[in-house]
Amino acid sequence: MTITNGRDLTPVLDRVDRTLEASLERLFAFLRIPSISAQPAHAGDCRRAAEWLCAELAGIGLDASVRETPGHPMVVAHDRGAAEGPHVLFYGHYDVQPVDPLDLWHSAPFEPQLVRDGEGARIVARGASDDKGQVMTFVEALRALRAECGTLPLRVSMVIEGEEESGGANLLPFLQANRDELHADVALICDTGMLEGGVPAITTALRGMVGEEVVIRGADRDLHSGIYGNAARNPLEVLCRILGAVRDPATGRVLLPGFYDGVQDPPEAVRAQWRAIAPSDAGFLGPVGLSVPAGEQGYSAVEQTWCRPTFEINGISGGYAGDGFKTVLPAEASAKISFRLVSGQDPARIRDAFRAHVRAMLPADCTVRFTPHGGSRASVVPADGPGLRAALAALGAEWGRPAVTVGSGGSIPVVSEVRQALDMDSLLIGFARDDDRIHSPNEKYDLTSFHRGIRSWVRVLDALARDGARAG
Amino acid sequence: MTITNGRDLTPVLDRVDRTLEASLERLFAFLRIPSISAQPAHAGDCRRAAEWLCAELAGIGLDASVRETPGHPMVVAHDRGAAEGPHVLFYGHYDVQPVDPLDLWHSAPFEPQLVRDGEGARIVARGASDDKGQVMTFVEALRALRAECGTLPLRVSMVIEGEEESGGANLLPFLQANRDELHADVALICDTGMLEGGVPAITTALRGMVGEEVVIRGADRDLHSGIYGNAARNPLEVLCRILGAVRDPATGRVLLPGFYDGVQDPPEAVRAQWRAIAPSDAGFLGPVGLSVPAGEQGYSAVEQTWCRPTFEINGISGGYAGDGFKTVLPAEASAKISFRLVSGQDPARIRDAFRAHVRAMLPADCTVRFTPHGGSRASVVPADGPGLRAALAALGAEWGRPAVTVGSGGSIPVVSEVRQALDMDSLLIGFARDDDRIHSPNEKYDLTSFHRGIRSWVRVLDALARDGARAG
Repeated sequence: MTITNGRDLTPVLDRVDRTLEASLERLFAFLRIPSISAQPAHAGDCRRAAEWLCAELAGIGLDASVRETPGHPMVVAHDRGAAEGPHVLFYGHYDVQPVDPLDLWHSAPFEPQLVRDGEGARIVARGASDDKGQVMTFVEALRALRAECGTLPLRVSMVIEGEEESGGANLLPFLQANRDELHADVALICDTGMLEGGVPAITTALRGMVGEEVVIRGADRDLHSGIYGNAARNPLEVLCRILGAVRDPATGRVLLPGFYDGVQDPPEAVRAQWRAIAPSDAGFLGPVGLSVPAGEQGYSAVEQTWCRPTFEINGISGGYAGDGFKTVLPAEASAKISFRLVSGQDPARIRDAFRAHVRAMLPADCTVRFTPHGGSRASVVPADGPGLRAALAALGAEWGRPAVTVGSGGSIPVVSEVRQALDMDSLLIGFARDDDRIHSPNEKYDLTSFHRGIRSWVRVLDALARDGARAG
Repeated sequence: MTITNGRDLTPVLDRVDRTLEASLERLFAFLRIPSISAQPAHAGDCRRAAEWLCAELAGIGLDASVRETPGHPMVVAHDRGAAEGPHVLFYGHYDVQPVDPLDLWHSAPFEPQLVRDGEGARIVARGASDDKGQVMTFVEALRALRAECGTLPLRVSMVIEGEEESGGANLLPFLQANRDELHADVALICDTGMLEGGVPAITTALRGMVGEEVVIRGADRDLHSGIYGNAARNPLEVLCRILGAVRDPATGRVLLPGFYDGVQDPPEAVRAQWRAIAPSDAGFLGPVGLSVPAGEQGYSAVEQTWCRPTFEINGISGGYAGDGFKTVLPAEASAKISFRLVSGQDPARIRDAFRAHVRAMLPADCTVRFTPHGGSRASVVPADGPGLRAALAALGAEWGRPAVTVGSGGSIPVVSEVRQALDMDSLLIGFARDDDRIHSPNEKYDLTSFHRGIRSWVRVLDALARDGARAG
């Protein structure tokens, strides 16, 4: 018998187990909607995903609505059942990443499959892990709790956005405009993962991000590289030279002036804890076919992603990339790049430093255009934040091993936006695995992540209700 | 009255003028066939272009056939009318470049237009200049000569290939296998241009080319740049660093060891002649929106393209290039690059030096794949080669100003292949203009180039018949 706070959770957890098939069917219906927020052609699908989710939440008994923004809509829901107790605000996103390269998928990205083979049972689809599968762990936990107990053990509000994968410019103003409605004791953000081997984790450090598109232009038309090659400036070569000079190849350090201003290493105690729990370089890189940490010298692979800033090229295009060969000297070359930031770095200053670097290396006869794609500071959740200990204990009970606090290389801007707009701390609890291939072909979510994720939320919500989401 | 060699050319030239409309209609039919040799989807169109051309030549009275190769077919034709006199082999190509970016075309690339506006009358279509328009100047000259005179003034054979724009690997073996059939006194190659201001020119120096595709691979899948950025090697960054280090940005010189071995500046007399006739830097670069020569210091823009070797990046792809932003760390990055060679450089050695450069800079955990895309030596036609003086005089008579010999930055591998397989020299005579936008959107061929190109061939064939295509 599983009793916390005087409430026996066994019937709720049993119901989760018993109704897993129906929970999966609902998740599959959600996954079939190709809600790619970055691609304007899928705007209608994004709205359809919002409406589908709104209807599900209303069906459970929440007061749910689709709310307009200048971009894709938000889904907002409130459970009015529990009149008192702590109040939590759940955050997730219904939008997904683009799917290309499509030819590397083993099944259609929006035709979810439950695959059972030597690698274990898993749900394969775009968004299976990031973030529809994770969102549905929470939704299904609410459904089981309400079905079994009549009411939830605490007050729950939800905001599910549709632009997390495409810049998310509309979330902060939406939170600010609806501050009174959305303010709660703590935010629950389900967009992170567990450690290797199924160790449950709460993420307490997240990197920020600066995204930027840079387009370099030379001649006013594409040229024949035989007739003009040498004498006419080649924007692709200019772009290579500029992007190749951002990082020192010997040390792996980013060379932009001031880039590391304010950056500090974590306390040695934290690094020691990480060494104890985090995967080794081989454990972190091996599963993706690599073995040698590529970035800054002097840091392990995990430290590089959890606590060090970086520069990445996310895409380059220019000239001819089709079959065969074309002797073109292109008029334009473009790149999408990003910086991941850690605590102490200012996104605006980093963006300015990058633009200054590009302009300083730009040769005569070339022009440059910049387009910003999002900017956010790093976030650190305090170790004594509200509900943290209670949530760690609840996760430990579900997974049968102590839960830990970890860092993450990714950026979840909502953490700093919730802090800024609603003056709230966040608990980042998620069940993704490092090998979920999020943002890649054949994205998957382990059936165990989904099933025990639902059970985890039942326990976490109960623990927070008992704990009062108290700090410490 | 236009009399050379005792033959009055006036009726032939008058016929060219009188039948120009019908000549244009035939060219337009040729241009409507999208014979893009580099794209497998257009293989059927390439064959259709070959068959169309074969039928035209047979209609004029030539013994014409479509001949198979391992790739796109060749068109071979012989005029059996003139039993004696010198024998010329005409070369051209019926294939064309890809058309992307399609959205920059003002009219559909395979719906030819005759545009008359402030820029002068011109034929706009992919292949209008390179090389269908040029090929048809010769075909229409043959038609007029046969129609007016019954026979041609000399023996004519033709070989028109379909892979000039896609590596052309099958031409050399075809020439070698058909040496007895195709051997002649001199080759006439119509794939070059005139000088600015309509000065007729015969090209006597052509750059060679080495084309190469390089694919760098890191992880075994695309990764999330937040989760893996820094610790996992980014192939796009590796590619930028490697390609950005091929050329010294200060001097513009290619840094591969041995790259300039054997390269010599032209004699000062030649450079002086070029200074007299060639466009200035402003004249060469201004029409494409540039003003500063970008390559090697110490050479004018024209010298850089006529007599100096170069390195060019023709295309890069990797990561996400669609709308919006995707925080991907791609598994692969690829580039198409080329070197243009001058006399003295060995394509195989240059390719080896490039591959060694890539391998030397390749970091741990990365692999590289190379795919060759053609390699050819530079060609130099001797100033005392067969028929050169006679052809210059004939061109001068048609265009009303002395014809000159020039260099070209482009590569026409057939010149060295004709030398190698058939032991023949070539005369490169063409009527393209620098602003023809070949390989670019809105390719055009001046109506004057087409019309007077036909008239030029009438005169050149007559002059060669008279001259006997003698050396000197």
